Amino acid sequence: MMDDRDSRMGLCAIRGGGDSGLARLVSEEGAAQVWDYLRRDERGGALASRAKRVDLDEVKRQTSLCGARFITPSDEEWPVCLADLSWSPGLGKLGGEPLGLWVVGQNLGRAYSPGIAIIGSRASTAYGEHVASDLAFDLAERHYSVISGGAYGIDACAHRGAIGAGGMTVAVMAGGLAEFYPPGNSALIGRVRDCGAVISECAPDQPPSRSGFLIRNRLIAALGQATVIVEGAVRSGAQNTVSWALSIGRPVLAVPGPVTSAMSATPHRLIRDGEAVLVTSVDDVVAAVKPLDTALQERVWADPLPEDQLPDLDKRIFDALPKRRGLGVDELCDVTGESAMDLLGVLTRLEEAGLATETKAGEWKAVLIRKTKT
Amino acid sequence: MMDDRDSRMGLCAIRGGGDSGLARLVSEEGAAQVWDYLRRDERGGALASRAKRVDLDEVKRQTSLCGARFITPSDEEWPVCLADLSWSPGLGKLGGEPLGLWVVGQNLGRAYSPGIAIIGSRASTAYGEHVASDLAFDLAERHYSVISGGAYGIDACAHRGAIGAGGMTVAVMAGGLAEFYPPGNSALIGRVRDCGAVISECAPDQPPSRSGFLIRNRLIAALGQATVIVEGAVRSGAQNTVSWALSIGRPVLAVPGPVTSAMSATPHRLIRDGEAVLVTSVDDVVAAVKPLDTALQERVWADPLPEDQLPDLDKRIFDALPKRRGLGVDELCDVTGESAMDLLGVLTRLEEAGLATETKAGEWKAVLIRKTKT
Repeated sequence: MMDDRDSRMGLCAIRGGGDSGLARLVSEEGAAQVWDYLRRDERGGALASRAKRVDLDEVKRQTSLCGARFITPSDEEWPVCLADLSWSPGLGKLGGEPLGLWVVGQNLGRAYSPGIAIIGSRASTAYGEHVASDLAFDLAERHYSVISGGAYGIDACAHRGAIGAGGMTVAVMAGGLAEFYPPGNSALIGRVRDCGAVISECAPDQPPSRSGFLIRNRLIAALGQATVIVEGAVRSGAQNTVSWALSIGRPVLAVPGPVTSAMSATPHRLIRDGEAVLVTSVDDVVAAVKPLDTALQERVWADPLPEDQLPDLDKRIFDALPKRRGLGVDELCDVTGESAMDLLGVLTRLEEAGLATETKAGEWKAVLIRKTKT
Repeated sequence: MMDDRDSRMGLCAIRGGGDSGLARLVSEEGAAQVWDYLRRDERGGALASRAKRVDLDEVKRQTSLCGARFITPSDEEWPVCLADLSWSPGLGKLGGEPLGLWVVGQNLGRAYSPGIAIIGSRASTAYGEHVASDLAFDLAERHYSVISGGAYGIDACAHRGAIGAGGMTVAVMAGGLAEFYPPGNSALIGRVRDCGAVISECAPDQPPSRSGFLIRNRLIAALGQATVIVEGAVRSGAQNTVSWALSIGRPVLAVPGPVTSAMSATPHRLIRDGEAVLVTSVDDVVAAVKPLDTALQERVWADPLPEDQLPDLDKRIFDALPKRRGLGVDELCDVTGESAMDLLGVLTRLEEAGLATETKAGEWKAVLIRKTKT
């Protein structure tokens, strides 16, 4: 039988995650058993037929082609926020526990946590964009990562705000990672990857679909310790993410706006109906998530940081690496007093450990990881 | 002993209302007894000394000079909203039941009810002014009267909105009615008097004082079936009215605004702390007051309207009178087919009954009273 990781990759490649029946089967029988069963099943069911069409080697090739890795709940970087959740059958057909995630960018476990989801309308107003950017910036400054969907409008501003503060941000894609969606935001999402992570439950070549967006929204809600809705018209897609957050028991926070703005209709309704707590600032957001926050952070920070486990020389080089822009090897020699040869050996080890990255030929920077317990 | 009405006028003239000790004494002993006691008391206490300095004839002269009348809880026009309240000792030193009110304008019982208080900052923003005007207009169109304090900013916009809709509005003054305060709003408050009523617990010549404003705020909160706060900075005077409304158990409603506006800080805090319900429109306000509303309106409308009790001729003339602008006696002759002599006799009777008013020499209009049960 195939191993757990490959089986999960195969199962994710069937339909991109969220399938609660499949997730339940996996939790009961194990991924390898379920994958094996589907591949052998000769009764011609839809799931089994699709499973047989999955070319796992091709999926792996595409995964490596786009620089992604496939992670599962047994990985160290699997987000605590997801592991913590009870994925009860009450969450419906699309509410299954994620079986695995494709990731590009930094160690997801550290990139996401503690994370706050910021969501809102694609057709945002200047007011909403200003508030989303500011809030994301302020959250990043307090070492929260900002989770969003990489979409136009509020999502984009949330990512930008976090990046602007030199913080962490995670974009959750509704399609595979071979092409970032929407195309107009691909440069921004590329920066999200460099500063944090871009993730998906879909195989790299899968295009975004309607159900893909719903499944993606569930992941945004699950990755956020709280979900903040900044703007949304009466029938807003953000409502779907809010519903997920409420279903899984995560606090929903809403930013009010002018009552004369149609884009504030959904936040106002959520507040009035008691489904969301009104927040006006980062202080309000932090106050609203505090209880969950502490517990989660303790778990995250209980593990020693990878760089603390490095040999002395490697640790010294790591500490010398700039966190934002790359630095040339020559300058690094000057700073550290090591030879270029020794440096390159250490840098290669650090890169393998996910702690350094070559920004362009001959320039290196540290992979930004959180250094303070907030 | 002096009669109840004059005794109450004397007691109000001592310190302008709100005194909970005095109010409790009156409810236990009767106003005449308390007034008589204070006037005879020779022990030189502050209250008794002030009572002895009250010149009741002068107060009456000033009352009539500014066209006011003094009403007490035994009057038909005493607002149901005040009679309904439990003025418990828990409301503090300034939370006494009003002993009487000076009124200029229409029958207060009808002018105020059902009433919604709209309050907010004097230093309002264009946004707040727009929202206050619109909300007052919409409430007036639905036959709610708008209660406010005649101040600059939100108060003024609330009155204007109600007047603009041809509705009822009541301004509660912190000083006596001889001079409307603030002077810059005296023309507006004059229009409030013509369209609704201007009231005070102070003798006509009493200037507004700090405690006068606090006492006035209690009356605004008590006259509103709900209090809507539109804008207020962190330390807003509107907070005082909100506290009164909460103390007497009336719903507080708050209009959100941009989180970037300091003037929305108090509404946002009240909503977040669960002290106020978020409202965005007249529909939200009406929904929030419905339970109390129905009960009150039934009591108000159980009494036949004064014009329904008029003799046939008077009723016919009353119906012919315009409700908004005055109409000349000549035109009225044409419309009704009555002689000028007969008309003037009827108009005088209608004026005495408070059902008609001479807008300028020879032009008459009906006094606007609510005609529909909403």
